[in-house]
Amino acid sequence: MVARNSGTRLSSSLVLNWLLIFVPVAIGLEFFRPEAHTYIFIAACLSIVPLAGWLGHATEHIAHHAGEGIGGLLNATFGNAAELIIALAALQKGLYGVVKASLTGSLIGNILLVFGASALAGGFRYKAQRFNSTASSAQAVLLTLAAIGLVMPAAFHYLQSPAKASLDSSLGLDISIVLLLAYAAHLVFSVHTHKALFRGKPAPPGEEQETPWSLRKAVLILAAATTLIAWISEILVGSVQQAATAFGMSEIFVGVIVVAIIGNAAEHSTAVIAAVKDRMDLSFGIAVGSSLQIALFVAPVLVILSHFIGPRPMDLAFSPAEVLAIFVSVLITGQVAADGETNWLEGVQLLATYLILAMVFYFLPDVAAQ
Amino acid sequence: MVARNSGTRLSSSLVLNWLLIFVPVAIGLEFFRPEAHTYIFIAACLSIVPLAGWLGHATEHIAHHAGEGIGGLLNATFGNAAELIIALAALQKGLYGVVKASLTGSLIGNILLVFGASALAGGFRYKAQRFNSTASSAQAVLLTLAAIGLVMPAAFHYLQSPAKASLDSSLGLDISIVLLLAYAAHLVFSVHTHKALFRGKPAPPGEEQETPWSLRKAVLILAAATTLIAWISEILVGSVQQAATAFGMSEIFVGVIVVAIIGNAAEHSTAVIAAVKDRMDLSFGIAVGSSLQIALFVAPVLVILSHFIGPRPMDLAFSPAEVLAIFVSVLITGQVAADGETNWLEGVQLLATYLILAMVFYFLPDVAAQ
Amino acid sequence: MVARNSGTRLSSSLVLNWLLIFVPVAIGLEFFRPEAHTYIFIAACLSIVPLAGWLGHATEHIAHHAGEGIGGLLNATFGNAAELIIALAALQKGLYGVVKASLTGSLIGNILLVFGASALAGGFRYKAQRFNSTASSAQAVLLTLAAIGLVMPAAFHYLQSPAKASLDSSLGLDISIVLLLAYAAHLVFSVHTHKALFRGKPAPPGEEQETPWSLRKAVLILAAATTLIAWISEILVGSVQQAATAFGMSEIFVGVIVVAIIGNAAEHSTAVIAAVKDRMDLSFGIAVGSSLQIALFVAPVLVILSHFIGPRPMDLAFSPAEVLAIFVSVLITGQVAADGETNWLEGVQLLATYLILAMVFYFLPDVAAQ
Repeated sequence: MVARNSGTRLSSSLVLNWLLIFVPVAIGLEFFRPEAHTYIFIAACLSIVPLAGWLGHATEHIAHHAGEGIGGLLNATFGNAAELIIALAALQKGLYGVVKASLTGSLIGNILLVFGASALAGGFRYKAQRFNSTASSAQAVLLTLAAIGLVMPAAFHYLQSPAKASLDSSLGLDISIVLLLAYAAHLVFSVHTHKALFRGKPAPPGEEQETPWSLRKAVLILAAATTLIAWISEILVGSVQQAATAFGMSEIFVGVIVVAIIGNAAEHSTAVIAAVKDRMDLSFGIAVGSSLQIALFVAPVLVILSHFIGPRPMDLAFSPAEVLAIFVSVLITGQVAADGETNWLEGVQLLATYLILAMVFYFLPDVAAQ
Repeated sequence: MVARNSGTRLSSSLVLNWLLIFVPVAIGLEFFRPEAHTYIFIAACLSIVPLAGWLGHATEHIAHHAGEGIGGLLNATFGNAAELIIALAALQKGLYGVVKASLTGSLIGNILLVFGASALAGGFRYKAQRFNSTASSAQAVLLTLAAIGLVMPAAFHYLQSPAKASLDSSLGLDISIVLLLAYAAHLVFSVHTHKALFRGKPAPPGEEQETPWSLRKAVLILAAATTLIAWISEILVGSVQQAATAFGMSEIFVGVIVVAIIGNAAEHSTAVIAAVKDRMDLSFGIAVGSSLQIALFVAPVLVILSHFIGPRPMDLAFSPAEVLAIFVSVLITGQVAADGETNWLEGVQLLATYLILAMVFYFLPDVAAQ
Repeated sequence: MVARNSGTRLSSSLVLNWLLIFVPVAIGLEFFRPEAHTYIFIAACLSIVPLAGWLGHATEHIAHHAGEGIGGLLNATFGNAAELIIALAALQKGLYGVVKASLTGSLIGNILLVFGASALAGGFRYKAQRFNSTASSAQAVLLTLAAIGLVMPAAFHYLQSPAKASLDSSLGLDISIVLLLAYAAHLVFSVHTHKALFRGKPAPPGEEQETPWSLRKAVLILAAATTLIAWISEILVGSVQQAATAFGMSEIFVGVIVVAIIGNAAEHSTAVIAAVKDRMDLSFGIAVGSSLQIALFVAPVLVILSHFIGPRPMDLAFSPAEVLAIFVSVLITGQVAADGETNWLEGVQLLATYLILAMVFYFLPDVAAQ
């Protein structure tokens, strides 16, 4: 999350703290009822929601101590740590289909579902909500670049005949490096050369600002949350296949839709609350920033790591349905963002697009997906 | 037609009233020379032009009596009634290829041909013509959503292997419902929450305003026009296959290009006249509003009705050429609309796009189309 | 090159004049060491850079004498004469894959590499650089139309099964005529009806303006440069296949990336220098204008000429990778141009897109390309 202002964040996700009860439930089930895959899956999903929230806060508080430059960097780098950890667990087991599905899901979920819901919720109170169009336009272009970077390897895969896995993985690695460099350039742009654009409106004076944690407290909480998420992710990934079968859903649907909704719940609530307070800059920044991070940071890092920890190198060749979903989402988001203004109808349009894509993934048989 | 102002409309299409002579000609030929398919087809085409115009006026006058809210709704719902009736006639016979071709043709014809001709005609008199960019941007995004909704089922169809017709038709039905809901949201937006955006410029004072018809007259004319159109459509659809063969054209070309030009002639002349009077808001509203109606209302309604009146459920899987045509049209229209301004060159560009698409459909053999 | 102001141009490309030494080197090698394909290729490439520069200047000076209207026309028509001559040499030998690759390469190279480098270089000095958004928007839409025109024949080619070469070439010819007409309309727009939009900022007063050449001198230089380029092109095209093999690159990579970079070196340096002087209108005009010329003038002319001078008619069916590259380049350029403003990050994004596309062409085996 490229959070510009963390005041709203904590208050909103404390609401989700009661879900922490599912942390021991998930771990307990895994030990004592390892065959109850469906329950384990549900408990693991629910317990990740508040943990991801705490991980995010801890990162922000450490960022606060580190000063603005490094702080922004930390924030931008560890904001999607939960998604990264879940994906790493799947990567180690060689479940590359699940990894890519959850990347796709996070990407489209953040821009369509999170931003759509924000625009809708904000639109109920305000006729039109404006946000800085230079910043949003830069982010929209970056999103297009990310989509091109993620879509090209798949295109390449289907253009070669017969496809050679070695070429796929070389191209995937090279493109990953370009995407990481583009992400680095974006960080320099947003925390250094053009940071004024990304400041957004100041928080309204009435809103209580929480006191910053001590560095020690923040580091301890970061360590604890990371450890727990890593543990739960291991459990989650182990149960996803059987749970999907039990629900009558394909694995790709669970990855693209279910896991992605869970993993982004914290961002989701923060973005919606920001929108209701007419702080669309923050809301757009959370949604699009998160998607950018997934595409330009998490995905390339996973590709590179797969050369070391995976059973074989992971390429970036998404399935055609995923390619289409990414492309379509980026296209409509770019159009919505172009005028630097949202209203409730645009929220509905983004949500409708999400719904249509979810339906396609629901009906799509697994064979076509991997 | 989401007409914002009906003053211009009647005066323009009265010009086409002499074409009413073809109503008895078409019916007469069908009875006395049933084998003269080509003449029947031409007469039926020409007679639908003025009838569609009268259907439109009647709807507007009823809308006038019903008050602004319901009026807008009626207008928006029955504006493309002629297209809907023609499509229903084809639907009943199970000619799903023709139905989809005429939907595609109406969609791309309205935004490329009608709006392109308007921008060109207006551009001869004015250096640049502006229109409200918030309203047009909302409509452009909706058009993208519509394109996504119409394109996804085809993508899904080709992504499954082997394709299952039952999945196609379930997905088509579900997406139809989402599109209808998006259309309903758009109606609420344009006739209720943000109606000010859609008001356009007032008609210039010099222009004579016609006196509203009585409700009784309007209802009678509506009934008469509807009955005649239904009858002629039956005749038209019965002759389309043989006429296409006689012209040496493919059935899909006749559906996409010929039928669509005929069916939208009334909108066409109104939109061009509005543009020449520098009322680009009205012109854009007619062209894009009509396309939206086709995509978000007529197409879904046909899919749903096919479950009741068709020989088998119709899916939404357009042919690849149609998908490409829809996509490309929406893309370039979105770009033209983005800056809320047109000039004659943009008109030429839209018309050139239409011409290129028409050529592709002309050369494309029928096998590839269905 | 649709140059609006030639002051900057000459000074920049004089720097490249020392490369003229490679003209005799290339010709000498061809005569005395005809088997040294790689050296011949390199020498020919380098010698075209300054010749293209001189061809451009001569055209501008003749244009100066011919008056504004005809001048703009000449400028716009002969601006990419070097690319046209190279392509003609390949056309005569029936190397249609190379012709199309170099068209694709010029198109994407101008908008991604040339404009990207300009935005980056300019962005180092200026926080944000603005340019006339009506003019740039008209050009962006035209670029989309060009992309549609170039992409449709390929789509058509893959939609027919089995593909008929005769249909491909009829469609290619018809679309070429539409593209030429659209180009003519664009010329009328930019040199006649809306020329004010394309005037850009005046050159800063400090900058020395060169004295115009006499008509005689300009015509002589034009003739000399054209003759030499035609000769060198012949040599270049003769060596491309063996050189590609020697470098371990595919022929399509050499065509799309290597030849295109060489052929546009003069535009490249002029555009970057203009950007550094904060004349983004000129910079955008050179990059996009050049791409437009390739797509709307050079490509159609080659198709039409292939009916007379080629061994068989050339169609416009680009390979899928080329189609994707064109489409993606136009999409992201349209987005960058939409707000009429650039910054260094947008430059980086365009360059990253170019790099990703270059990688795809590098890895793509030749079989898939033709």
